[in-house]
Amino acid sequence: MQLQNELTERLGLRYPILCAPMGAVAGGRLAAAVSRAGGLGLIGPGYLGTDWLDAQFEAAEDVRIGVGFITWDLARSPERLDAALAHKPAAVMLSFGDPEPFLPAIRRAGARVLLQVQTLEAAERAAALDVDFIVAQGSEAGGHGADRGLFPLLPAVVDAVAPIPVVAAGGIADGRGLVAALALGAHGILVGTRFYATEEALGHAAAKTLLVSGGGDATVRTQIFDIVRGLSWPSGFTGRALRNAFTERWHGREANLRAAVPQEQPRYAQAARSGDLNTAVVWAGEGIDLVHEVLPAATIVERIMREADAALRNLTRHAPGP
Amino acid sequence: MQLQNELTERLGLRYPILCAPMGAVAGGRLAAAVSRAGGLGLIGPGYLGTDWLDAQFEAAEDVRIGVGFITWDLARSPERLDAALAHKPAAVMLSFGDPEPFLPAIRRAGARVLLQVQTLEAAERAAALDVDFIVAQGSEAGGHGADRGLFPLLPAVVDAVAPIPVVAAGGIADGRGLVAALALGAHGILVGTRFYATEEALGHAAAKTLLVSGGGDATVRTQIFDIVRGLSWPSGFTGRALRNAFTERWHGREANLRAAVPQEQPRYAQAARSGDLNTAVVWAGEGIDLVHEVLPAATIVERIMREADAALRNLTRHAPGP
Repeated sequence: MQLQNELTERLGLRYPILCAPMGAVAGGRLAAAVSRAGGLGLIGPGYLGTDWLDAQFEAAEDVRIGVGFITWDLARSPERLDAALAHKPAAVMLSFGDPEPFLPAIRRAGARVLLQVQTLEAAERAAALDVDFIVAQGSEAGGHGADRGLFPLLPAVVDAVAPIPVVAAGGIADGRGLVAALALGAHGILVGTRFYATEEALGHAAAKTLLVSGGGDATVRTQIFDIVRGLSWPSGFTGRALRNAFTERWHGREANLRAAVPQEQPRYAQAARSGDLNTAVVWAGEGIDLVHEVLPAATIVERIMREADAALRNLTRHAPGP
Repeated sequence: MQLQNELTERLGLRYPILCAPMGAVAGGRLAAAVSRAGGLGLIGPGYLGTDWLDAQFEAAEDVRIGVGFITWDLARSPERLDAALAHKPAAVMLSFGDPEPFLPAIRRAGARVLLQVQTLEAAERAAALDVDFIVAQGSEAGGHGADRGLFPLLPAVVDAVAPIPVVAAGGIADGRGLVAALALGAHGILVGTRFYATEEALGHAAAKTLLVSGGGDATVRTQIFDIVRGLSWPSGFTGRALRNAFTERWHGREANLRAAVPQEQPRYAQAARSGDLNTAVVWAGEGIDLVHEVLPAATIVERIMREADAALRNLTRHAPGP
């Protein structure tokens, strides 16, 4: 299937598929694999520093990739943006916080700007800024996000920010989702969790196994993993994760967890170090129902395009035109 | 646009568009208007009794319509099913509770069965029953529902219950949504809130005005309107409503509201009677961003099909095939 539009043209892609900058999971190998396959991979430093960025750009071996920051955390150590821009990323994605202070430097470096929003109101504010693309992220997404469902949010954002191209994010894991996103007015998709369950993604092999075996019914949006780690996320944002013993114990008891942080934080940190995923978080989107095996990232890109082609043929067969 | 499939064929429809049985809002006039326009309207008795059912079937003037029940509430006064079946509905939809006791009577009456589910696990259980269609309802829906986002839930349900045709519900308000639902594997759509803002819908004119002026960012899934009315909804279900002074006061303070029910219930009932929508609930889905005016129901059906045609042409233009 051929699919060229303002997104693929401005980013120089064969396919309108972006790999989400999942913090500490989307490293250089994954990003480069997605880019080589025709999409665009974005590395995700999360809360990590310039050393991680340099190492992951190196791991990408000069393949054209992008990078995505947690905006409020970037503001705490903004030197990371300069470190990333020194590697000439194709695009910089900013999510969760005030992007304005960072836009001039990204522009000067010649990178495209992707701004991720979670509400219609934030999309309207984003449209007033100098950005190339707006990413509309639904509540279905793994990791941090907010409460609006992608299906109605996406066309509302498309209408509100036109003619800025919109990328759909949150719970998209196959080619049916690509065609649905395009039907709702998006120019492409940003895929996270599906690319977590790849050979190239960083992170515990045990986490990838859980993504394959787990289901969307067993994910939850929660603040508890931020509370226990002492992270000061702005209000309104939660993280979608697999339910585990830690969510069973603390989700819905946030005030109690805040009071227990002095005891719980070191225990949590130890569990995270040792890979105890009954306690430590595994971020996961609701799209994991569609994740049945760990695959090479390139296979996923090819499969999405093949599935999209089939979905489109199916649509036109059902609806042969007026 | 022509669009015929197992859903339209088995229900005898021109278009795969169903009007949701919104409790006390989807009456006979609305249901008949949607059916006359080529879809299928379902009346929604909600917690109301046989008098209401008889009156609304009469208001539909022998146009072929369906009816949808809150299953756990139907179990409290099951004579309502017989009253409805006496009117020879085209279909009976059951949501929220155990449908099994009601299926034989519906079958004997020759009506089609639509079973609405909110999780993949419930869909798997539904597929083992004798039902014609499964409705996959996303969290975006107005009124009662649960937590899963439609975009990833829908294809997972389609895969799990095949070959049973699936209808998509929750936050769908235009033709882009119809095409997206078809791309994700649905056979049609169930539309609620968009049909609430019609001339034919029951309910306060002031509520319809709020649906037009309001936005999806300002809706919330909450239990408080059930708590204050003393309704015993099964756990896991909440209702999506417009935020108002009552949600600002009580949402997140459910335990306090439970304790205050003796004082709050009569005040709430008075507000509901007098149409004070700062207190009384206005159920609304996240799709209200796409609702810009109160229209005749037939206009909405025609518009959805026209928009779907445009969305499909747009898709095939972007993706001219392999």
